Amino acid sequence: MEQKILDCTLRDGGLVNRFYFTDDFVRGLYQANLQAGIDYMEFGYKASEALFDRREFGKWKFCREEDLRAVVGDNKTSMKISVMADVGRTDYSKDILEKKDSVIDMVRIAAYAEQMGEAMEMVSCCKERGYETSVNIMAISNNTDEEIDRALETVSKSRADAVYVVDSYGSFYPEQIKALTKRYIRLAGNGRKVGIHAHNNQQLAFANTIEAMRCGAALLDVTVNGMGRGAGNCGSEQLLGYIGSSEKYNELPVIEFIENHVLLLKQAGILWGYDIPYLLTGQGCKHPSKAIEFVENHRTEYAGLFRQMMGA
Amino acid sequence: MEQKILDCTLRDGGLVNRFYFTDDFVRGLYQANLQAGIDYMEFGYKASEALFDRREFGKWKFCREEDLRAVVGDNKTSMKISVMADVGRTDYSKDILEKKDSVIDMVRIAAYAEQMGEAMEMVSCCKERGYETSVNIMAISNNTDEEIDRALETVSKSRADAVYVVDSYGSFYPEQIKALTKRYIRLAGNGRKVGIHAHNNQQLAFANTIEAMRCGAALLDVTVNGMGRGAGNCGSEQLLGYIGSSEKYNELPVIEFIENHVLLLKQAGILWGYDIPYLLTGQGCKHPSKAIEFVENHRTEYAGLFRQMMGA
Repeated sequence: MEQKILDCTLRDGGLVNRFYFTDDFVRGLYQANLQAGIDYMEFGYKASEALFDRREFGKWKFCREEDLRAVVGDNKTSMKISVMADVGRTDYSKDILEKKDSVIDMVRIAAYAEQMGEAMEMVSCCKERGYETSVNIMAISNNTDEEIDRALETVSKSRADAVYVVDSYGSFYPEQIKALTKRYIRLAGNGRKVGIHAHNNQQLAFANTIEAMRCGAALLDVTVNGMGRGAGNCGSEQLLGYIGSSEKYNELPVIEFIENHVLLLKQAGILWGYDIPYLLTGQGCKHPSKAIEFVENHRTEYAGLFRQMMGA
Repeated sequence: MEQKILDCTLRDGGLVNRFYFTDDFVRGLYQANLQAGIDYMEFGYKASEALFDRREFGKWKFCREEDLRAVVGDNKTSMKISVMADVGRTDYSKDILEKKDSVIDMVRIAAYAEQMGEAMEMVSCCKERGYETSVNIMAISNNTDEEIDRALETVSKSRADAVYVVDSYGSFYPEQIKALTKRYIRLAGNGRKVGIHAHNNQQLAFANTIEAMRCGAALLDVTVNGMGRGAGNCGSEQLLGYIGSSEKYNELPVIEFIENHVLLLKQAGILWGYDIPYLLTGQGCKHPSKAIEFVENHRTEYAGLFRQMMGA
């Protein structure tokens, strides 16, 4: 199966800067992704404006249709557009328009294994309105095999076009990703793609992404320079280098975008990327929030954090 | 085969700070490695004092017996001590003592594939004097399969105790490391261990190390916090986390050492670790010298470097 690359810089990276990207950054990224041959570009979340105050976040937390169109027009390109909607944090029935009225192509539904019921309602709604859909089951490093299997069985009976192996805490090793990818394909791969969304807590986001790809994962999530929450994600520039230049893919536009746009974010003090605290939360299968607090506040009591994470 | 972990922080990390480690750092590392269960600790190079001026480098470029003993005494521990000697840069017949007069246990001989003749002379000399030896064949990403096979055939006829897969430029992907490890074991594994020494240019040092280990590599090189030339190496703390705590191994002493010693180096401006220029030299199978110059001088013309590396 031919793989597709999905850039989710604005979405996962938006968790780092509260979605305050400049219009220049977003337009530049859209052009870079087009030139690089990226297959899907995710612009952000479809978050509920009842639950989240628009004045406290940049516009890509909400991805209103007019904001998307201001960048992509009618998106008369071969690159598709996706948004993410979290179970319980979206007014999907109101905010997700009929496909004929939207430039969005795919809605990715993020849910914990125990939220599959509501996730399936969202899949049905989005499919009826005409979208591609994926189900991204989060934080599975804390689920039992039985819980994962039950979620996959639910997905396998749905109209979802894809299901994602999501390593929310950056805890998995390549051999675990291999086993998970094969399990997802076996239990829910009937007519749907399996995707991989990796985090870099243990510096394994890239390795885990190519491991999943070699096992048949066909939707590969990346972000430019790995920009994403905490330790970040698999870098577009890493995966494009691995896949190699071709008529389809091209690494150079991403490298140019990093040089011309991403470095400005870094210089402005926006923080992401591998560091020891992220390793420790990853090793402990814990949410990265504690590590983010360490990094933001320049805390270096690593041994104390280790003991806390390992319960030692 | 049970694996052994070799810490080469002082040796590969010494390439970053010209081997100027404080005595406090070296003593602290020795104690941390002992507590962590590390099997071998490499103290540095046995460089020729005729070719290199002792006033221009710290003492661990030379590893005189008295300097070693000032830290380890007679090393009455279960951790072995290694040094590295580069073909063409060492006065091995003069500087490597009879084993009975030295605390060194292993001499690692670093050579390019075309230097196997002289490497074998060094192996013979070191074996006669009573040492364990390894042959570390460097920069093989620029060798043909035939050149690698010829070097391995030479090693297979020698008394060397180990031979290393060395990814000098950080260019290899896990599936290549898998094939190389199996090739090394097949062609030169007769009665000798195969080792892995990875570099982190593509953020694959850790992934490549555990891939090699799963394929039978039994000598695994690490450095604390990945300290090593350019993008650095596989972190001790990463590998120890993967192997897991046991009666033998323990990650916490390494985490404490990073907190108490390594952060001071970072604060003093000593530079290593993943960055975009290293990715590009790794992708291009080039020596990291150009990337090191970029990072040291805060150069950010990444697109120009990409074109240069890829010959585009």
